[in-house]
Amino acid sequence: MKPSHVEHIGIAVKNLDASIRFYEEILGLQCYNIEEVKDQKVRTAFLQVGDTKIELLESTDPDGPIGKFVEKKGEGVHHVAFAVENIKEELAHAKQKGIRLIDHQPRKGAEGLDIAFLHPKSTHGTLIELCEDKTKINSH
Amino acid sequence: MKPSHVEHIGIAVKNLDASIRFYEEILGLQCYNIEEVKDQKVRTAFLQVGDTKIELLESTDPDGPIGKFVEKKGEGVHHVAFAVENIKEELAHAKQKGIRLIDHQPRKGAEGLDIAFLHPKSTHGTLIELCEDKTKINSH
Repeated sequence: MKPSHVEHIGIAVKNLDASIRFYEEILGLQCYNIEEVKDQKVRTAFLQVGDTKIELLESTDPDGPIGKFVEKKGEGVHHVAFAVENIKEELAHAKQKGIRLIDHQPRKGAEGLDIAFLHPKSTHGTLIELCEDKTKINSH
Repeated sequence: MKPSHVEHIGIAVKNLDASIRFYEEILGLQCYNIEEVKDQKVRTAFLQVGDTKIELLESTDPDGPIGKFVEKKGEGVHHVAFAVENIKEELAHAKQKGIRLIDHQPRKGAEGLDIAFLHPKSTHGTLIELCEDKTKINSH
């Protein structure tokens, strides 16, 4: 595996609109998209900084993964996503090395990317996402 | 403020060597430096991915900030650092907007950068660091 960059940092927040205001007015970033990901029970806002997106995540359901995370740990970084060229190969490589996978096959995430999570029990505590952007690779 | 990129992601870990092995062998990154920051009571390893560094932080003292963080929250992302051109101006701007600062003046962090932290109570939960790399700006 050789990720090209940090594709995004997923940050769990209680109030999406107030958080967007902080990142826009204080940090000077710009929110370019808000999207609801129904199967993850989140409303998500995206802000770009260099190669990386800040992905703010507000739960739409207290029983969803972000709702539970905020309940247990409070607001803050929920996951770190690395851009890879071939997510299927990387998952097979990680599995072969004994890494516990949350997603054994890639699934569709926000912004149409193919994504999969590695379990934090195998990554020294950080929930790590792998992302493949097929449109980018096809355009190279 | 308009940060240019995510300078680094600081990740608190219990065992630096085991964590480096994960990031090298599974994610395919390479550790290029290990440094002890005595006043922060940490041993730090750096791995580059795109514009961003992964900064792994192992506490050298259970009473240090990383030791306390791991005790309270477990391993995982501790802070997110944004690269800015003029850290003094950005701190003044944030303060003027009512943001609570941990560092009112920049101080020296790892790798010789000028750094300052914003308080997570003012940032919707994420410990945010600002970094200015004077050598980079002078060389432009």
